[in-house]
Amino acid sequence: MSEIKTLTKPVPPGGVIGIIGGGQLGRMLAMAAARLGLKAAVYNDENHAPAFQVTPLQIAAPYDDRNMLTGFAEICDVITFEFENLPSDAIAHLASLKPVRPGQRALEITQDRFSEKSFVQSLGLKTAPFVAVTSVQDAATAFAQMDGAAILKTRRLGYDGKGQSKVTSGAEAQAAFQHFKGAPSILEGFVDFAFEASVVAARAADGSFAAFDPPENIHENHILRRSIVPGRLSKAQSDEAKAIAKAIADALDYVGVLAVELFVGKDGSLAINEIAPRVHNSGHWTIEACACSQFEQHIRAVAGWPLGDPARHADAVMENVIGAEADAWESLARSGALHLYGKREARLGRKMGHMTRLKPLTK
Amino acid sequence: MSEIKTLTKPVPPGGVIGIIGGGQLGRMLAMAAARLGLKAAVYNDENHAPAFQVTPLQIAAPYDDRNMLTGFAEICDVITFEFENLPSDAIAHLASLKPVRPGQRALEITQDRFSEKSFVQSLGLKTAPFVAVTSVQDAATAFAQMDGAAILKTRRLGYDGKGQSKVTSGAEAQAAFQHFKGAPSILEGFVDFAFEASVVAARAADGSFAAFDPPENIHENHILRRSIVPGRLSKAQSDEAKAIAKAIADALDYVGVLAVELFVGKDGSLAINEIAPRVHNSGHWTIEACACSQFEQHIRAVAGWPLGDPARHADAVMENVIGAEADAWESLARSGALHLYGKREARLGRKMGHMTRLKPLTK
Repeated sequence: MSEIKTLTKPVPPGGVIGIIGGGQLGRMLAMAAARLGLKAAVYNDENHAPAFQVTPLQIAAPYDDRNMLTGFAEICDVITFEFENLPSDAIAHLASLKPVRPGQRALEITQDRFSEKSFVQSLGLKTAPFVAVTSVQDAATAFAQMDGAAILKTRRLGYDGKGQSKVTSGAEAQAAFQHFKGAPSILEGFVDFAFEASVVAARAADGSFAAFDPPENIHENHILRRSIVPGRLSKAQSDEAKAIAKAIADALDYVGVLAVELFVGKDGSLAINEIAPRVHNSGHWTIEACACSQFEQHIRAVAGWPLGDPARHADAVMENVIGAEADAWESLARSGALHLYGKREARLGRKMGHMTRLKPLTK
Repeated sequence: MSEIKTLTKPVPPGGVIGIIGGGQLGRMLAMAAARLGLKAAVYNDENHAPAFQVTPLQIAAPYDDRNMLTGFAEICDVITFEFENLPSDAIAHLASLKPVRPGQRALEITQDRFSEKSFVQSLGLKTAPFVAVTSVQDAATAFAQMDGAAILKTRRLGYDGKGQSKVTSGAEAQAAFQHFKGAPSILEGFVDFAFEASVVAARAADGSFAAFDPPENIHENHILRRSIVPGRLSKAQSDEAKAIAKAIADALDYVGVLAVELFVGKDGSLAINEIAPRVHNSGHWTIEACACSQFEQHIRAVAGWPLGDPARHADAVMENVIGAEADAWESLARSGALHLYGKREARLGRKMGHMTRLKPLTK
């Protein structure tokens, strides 16, 4: 096994940040790098990636193409990701060539719902009840342990509700498991939450930590519809959310921005739904409402720069522009800060952009 | 003479904004276009232009290369500028191929200090006293009309104090004119100002208008050091500054962002120092302090989109990072929103980046 490369000093202005994944998150990361005088190189498995429009340094090749990954690593000073699902051996290969941030352990833990939730519980933090399901028999047994309805989720590669199925009986749980073609899964109990929230935070290699104010999030059809900051979280809940993010980031020896999705219970308690080891849709409002956005914060952390100030200087509502909603770009542009991602096709459920509306700071 | 192309409908997302000039202003314009889902194509007369780092669509060729300008125009939906000094026939050539915004007349008037000041006076607006100087004899005659010290300025191609010389006698005025190799010039009387300010504003093709709050500006060695908003302008002065910008933009049938540099007299009156038919250094604070920056506002105007909201939601101080000051990037990054422009050499007096510090909104 090759040695892992580490970053011993900050990437200076003019240096190259490698970004694996060229979707909207990669695009906004590349633009944030440019603000700081850093260059962005983007690696994506398809042509016409949104991020390819904002940098001349780009490679389109499969994520398991060893030679292309090697060539990409050669032009980069440090490598990061817009998504957590890169094959583990591709990450290991990159890490043998150039510093990779966040590190492989954080990516591996969060690639798998079971290991992620087990990790969270090991920190003494609350999650929804969950049980591993590896067989049809497991599915029924697991359901019997739940308090009524539950959700079967594949352990890997789920996002925006993909690889998830709500079940209300042992038989349904078994059918869902078969529908997932027997992919290793977990059965997760429902949390009786009042609303959803998230916390987006950054940790630098020196252990310094900065969290943005946690927004309240509203989902529709398993896709984030809207993030509101300040939302319904109390000051104490907001502080607790930031402390949760810090505990997780510290335990992972994390470098970069991560997001923790939370359930805010009717009893006021916070339970952890999911960790995203990357910038997050619920942090897009930071572009307008903070002097340092989540994207710049991530670039600062991975490049070894000092973290920026996460202070919020306006209230904000971020709303996703989904599918054909983007056709109304002209009227959307009239009503707030519109971001469009340069995607060619407005497919159903596809995130085409987002809108942020600011209001004077209230708290 | 070829017909001038006009924009009959907005450039839709995915369209291409052509930007002539690849310095920091072109770079920040390109990034603003990308936010809106528009592509930026950059034309610059040297390789390694800052703006070339933020788009794959780029041409490096002389500004009078007819064939390259033609090729550039072919990939663009509309063309704009980061600077006002493109040769007039190059502008005319581009305008015969694709819509050019702002239009040729605005550029021509503002390329020449004498025609610019005459135009401003024709609107009933105040300027410093000025006299055209076209001969050594003129220089002495002009000085005699001034009240003590004056500044000889070449009519064309001056910026950041270049092509300017302070003179305190008729003989010095003559010597300065000879030093400028007899280039057509103006002699400008000093204005006894309390401080300097500027107003950055946008006008759309439909006549709609939006002005940012005018900052107070502090210059050092003829280069902008710092812009402060709110500065020392009263509400009435701020409103007057915006009205001046509107009068100028309307009279020029202007499309895009323009900046008007102002002297705020000890008597409280505003005199116009200079018009810049483009985004302006004194508007950089809008990136953090407004939901729509001057760069996005310019792109919106030239692309035929609705103008954005120029409301300011924080107080701001913008400070340029000049020459070797950029070496301290790590400590600068600690103290605010740092922008670096990707320039390779930190030459003396060269603008390498800028810093914006935000404070809670006071007025």
